[in-house]
Amino acid sequence: MIETPYLLFLGDAPDGLAAKVAQGIKDWRPEYAVGQFRLEGCKADMKLPDLSIAEAVDKGVKTLVIGVANRGGVISPSWKSVLIEAMEAGLDLASGLHNLLRNEADLAAKAKELGRTLHDVRIPAVQYPIANGKKRTGKRMLAVGTDCSVGKMYTALCVERAMREKGMKATFRATGQTGILITGGGVPLDAVIADFMAGSIEYLSPDNDADHWDLIEGQGSLFHASYSGVTLALIHGGQPDALVICHEPNRPHMRGLPDYQLPSLEAVRDLALQMARIVNPDCKVVGISLNTSAMSDEEALEYCRQTEARMGLPTVDPFRHGAERLADALAAL
Amino acid sequence: MIETPYLLFLGDAPDGLAAKVAQGIKDWRPEYAVGQFRLEGCKADMKLPDLSIAEAVDKGVKTLVIGVANRGGVISPSWKSVLIEAMEAGLDLASGLHNLLRNEADLAAKAKELGRTLHDVRIPAVQYPIANGKKRTGKRMLAVGTDCSVGKMYTALCVERAMREKGMKATFRATGQTGILITGGGVPLDAVIADFMAGSIEYLSPDNDADHWDLIEGQGSLFHASYSGVTLALIHGGQPDALVICHEPNRPHMRGLPDYQLPSLEAVRDLALQMARIVNPDCKVVGISLNTSAMSDEEALEYCRQTEARMGLPTVDPFRHGAERLADALAAL
Repeated sequence: MIETPYLLFLGDAPDGLAAKVAQGIKDWRPEYAVGQFRLEGCKADMKLPDLSIAEAVDKGVKTLVIGVANRGGVISPSWKSVLIEAMEAGLDLASGLHNLLRNEADLAAKAKELGRTLHDVRIPAVQYPIANGKKRTGKRMLAVGTDCSVGKMYTALCVERAMREKGMKATFRATGQTGILITGGGVPLDAVIADFMAGSIEYLSPDNDADHWDLIEGQGSLFHASYSGVTLALIHGGQPDALVICHEPNRPHMRGLPDYQLPSLEAVRDLALQMARIVNPDCKVVGISLNTSAMSDEEALEYCRQTEARMGLPTVDPFRHGAERLADALAAL
Repeated sequence: MIETPYLLFLGDAPDGLAAKVAQGIKDWRPEYAVGQFRLEGCKADMKLPDLSIAEAVDKGVKTLVIGVANRGGVISPSWKSVLIEAMEAGLDLASGLHNLLRNEADLAAKAKELGRTLHDVRIPAVQYPIANGKKRTGKRMLAVGTDCSVGKMYTALCVERAMREKGMKATFRATGQTGILITGGGVPLDAVIADFMAGSIEYLSPDNDADHWDLIEGQGSLFHASYSGVTLALIHGGQPDALVICHEPNRPHMRGLPDYQLPSLEAVRDLALQMARIVNPDCKVVGISLNTSAMSDEEALEYCRQTEARMGLPTVDPFRHGAERLADALAAL
């Protein structure tokens, strides 16, 4: 686990989009987001106090999180003096970049000298077990999708928020780099060795209270030729009691696969359920989560209504309309 | 690729079973198996000439293959002098053991000094691409199973042999350590990073002649909670034209999962086909391969007959009865 709270390092972000990780932390764990640190020319702004390293330490910050993605995922030389200053002031560093903090000789040497931790969340920090398939206590929801990047992380985070607002016990379980940085822990599933994928998800969502829900971030799609194996490992390792199907309308083809059309919601429902019931015969599909970000308010509501009528399942854009109906459907199980 | 032919190192194998890798090479690539090297007390015998290192070099051997598995998969200190002598005489080394040749300081130093290659086939030697799902030329068969270790490697090897005997173009494609050592190349799929699994199988079975068959070794099972993701990556990366279902009767439960019963052949047929058709709508199930090693001759034939009547598909134990009927079914596609 990454120690919280955080100072969000925005570097020289060319725009707000480049600071997606910082935005996610601020949106979903505002209590971790004590302040931001921007270099000259930074075009991103999280509307958080701009803090010096010393001020951040005074406010109890434990970790500087690199909240920005450079082109190519590199650690910019212009960041180095700040990162080293942060370590000297007592902070750990956390990054989801493709290039690892630990592979920067100057950062690695300084961390070792000072006893600081470099969290490279792109790669696993744990030796995961082989999955054993044993029934676990507690409840689990998994977000499954028609495609990659359709809103599975946001769906799980929205359901967590809605459940907590109802006083339910709920924990978002991150399976990707952004989710790990947002919550301080999780499994970087795309970087796990094949034999240990399902085991890593069992590890991520262990036995829990009977009325506790793990809300597991999905990855890929059973219908995505590049990543379907990762998705199936999530289904079998996650042992879900409930599935929420996530979809973004209007995609011309599967992400990165111009030769492949998106499957229908019905096809995803049937195949994911069949797969999930191998490990949990009681699993149910409880709702549909649409990413309507490209639609007007009116279009979005109408699309949700039509989909709900067609599928007979609660259908919302949880980021736009809230996830209360999904939380209700889960609570009713 | 590992350079051939081989000297099969049997070490101090306590029995024939411990020399499974050597036996596989001798059975399936006899032209690679020039001789064997045994230490004092070795209880395994491949019925090959016992050669000194110098004699092996004289006969054109290029690589010493560790054909024996120690308890714990370690490289025994008593082997070291032979392995170093082999490198000094010009041979590369190849091993599928869990502990890697390259992590033995003395072996690594000697290999570097002499310019020899240490092939640790347990881990990938290649940075595989992300799968692109594009249709490839040539034909592909994939062995899928009701469970792990039901004979998928033997099935693919038997079909390769039967096809070659018919004059067909056929290549066994290894996806596990033993298969890689037998044929000199392949993908150690269980050790591949999650995101690259399907891509590694596309890499393994590239474009080929229209009448060429890749016979891809299967791994795991769609119904095996620990490894199903690996199996699905094989199906989607392999893009099979044909599936052969492999099964070992009489298992009390899924291998390593006491809480899970084996699926029926019908269930495997339907689910594997549904999955395969996502990437190749023309895929067909062409036959059934039974591992009847625990049955008498009569029982085995009767069990094949009954299964064939039930499933309506050519059904054989290819290791016992030959794979000609499976090869015929593939040729007829």
